[in-house]
Amino acid sequence: MTSATTAPPESADRTDVLALLGLVAHLELVAFTRLAADSALAPTTDQRLRLMRFSAGAVARLERIFEHIEELGGRPDAELERYARVLEDFDARTTPGSWWERMLNAYVGYGVADDFCKAAAAGLDPRTRELVMDVLDGASHADLTVATLSEAAARDDVLASRLALWGRRLVGEALGVVQTLLVSQPALARLALDGGDAGADRTAPTGTAPTGSTPADTAELTARLFGRLTAEHTRRMGRLGLTA
Amino acid sequence: MTSATTAPPESADRTDVLALLGLVAHLELVAFTRLAADSALAPTTDQRLRLMRFSAGAVARLERIFEHIEELGGRPDAELERYARVLEDFDARTTPGSWWERMLNAYVGYGVADDFCKAAAAGLDPRTRELVMDVLDGASHADLTVATLSEAAARDDVLASRLALWGRRLVGEALGVVQTLLVSQPALARLALDGGDAGADRTAPTGTAPTGSTPADTAELTARLFGRLTAEHTRRMGRLGLTA
Repeated sequence: MTSATTAPPESADRTDVLALLGLVAHLELVAFTRLAADSALAPTTDQRLRLMRFSAGAVARLERIFEHIEELGGRPDAELERYARVLEDFDARTTPGSWWERMLNAYVGYGVADDFCKAAAAGLDPRTRELVMDVLDGASHADLTVATLSEAAARDDVLASRLALWGRRLVGEALGVVQTLLVSQPALARLALDGGDAGADRTAPTGTAPTGSTPADTAELTARLFGRLTAEHTRRMGRLGLTA
Repeated sequence: MTSATTAPPESADRTDVLALLGLVAHLELVAFTRLAADSALAPTTDQRLRLMRFSAGAVARLERIFEHIEELGGRPDAELERYARVLEDFDARTTPGSWWERMLNAYVGYGVADDFCKAAAAGLDPRTRELVMDVLDGASHADLTVATLSEAAARDDVLASRLALWGRRLVGEALGVVQTLLVSQPALARLALDGGDAGADRTAPTGTAPTGSTPADTAELTARLFGRLTAEHTRRMGRLGLTA
């Protein structure tokens, strides 16, 4: 039995912490690339500049994560490379048909990804947890999406129903990425399933965490994690005035 | 006669200064977009991160130009919009066939654009001139290009001759963009032809500047500007070990 499988959720293994930081870094790198491409396609100069600033903001957040990876004795590029192009695969499978759909892609995709990272961060040491939460909350371009899409959807019923349909497609693909990550990165599964449990039910006695858990426990915890991610998605679509 | 046509080169009209700052801002915006796209296509994580940082650097330089436009009482978005997509047209006409050609596009295109802006900045007030020079010199990713392309060209004669040919195509297109700018933006023509003259021949008596000049003078000054731009291009290709 390795130290990773015996560590309680409150003192996550350093390797697991690095794996999560790598995922957050990868998310910021993909966000940088995507927001820069969005900026180039934006219909007005004002939107182009706003998206450009969001893109540069992702770089600043990435650097903070890199600094912390180095403080923990990790190598930023190695942690980043674990995820290769896993989130770009999501993009490749969800080619948007319009500017509106493109905005929804980032809103839904990053929404699920951020919630997953937050669930996984719940069991980390306070300093790392605060950094991850702060970095994820700093990706505030969701506000621009909410303002733009909710207004457009309110004006146009056909657009609204198309976007609602597109949102269901996107969340399905996003949850598929989460499933892939849980299988391919055991470190993330340990953190997200522990963290998800801790977040959902703080009254559970310490020691019933899924470290060394049975397949039935894991299935139960995975279902609970997916339930939380879906609930958050429903709430997010509600902010747009769309049904999930 | 407007104040713009009577102002001597040493005290360029505020409107002309704003036009040049708008061009520098547009160059940085296009650099941000292009470097972000390059980053997404980079063959290694290390190169991807370096290009990402160059891209974020372009945003930081753009913000400095915006601040100065506002100090001079201008509106950044309005100055930016003068140039609409003039430099993206250059990109559209010069689709590279390989990663090497893509690197050369930026090296040659921005090289000519930077030299043009420096020529136009020569007659500005010292503070604005220093800002423009500093911003343009900050775009130092040329060093990465020189290291990568000169090494690749030295190893492979066929690649070297292809890149030399591509460089000639690129500089032709780039000089075409300069010609378009001189015609469509009289403010830039006033600055670049005055500045080009001042830079080339400091002994010319004040007052012989091309403000209110004859068509023959303008043709002479334009030829001189293009001569300087071409000479700088030849020097740049030499750094790659390629003939211009």
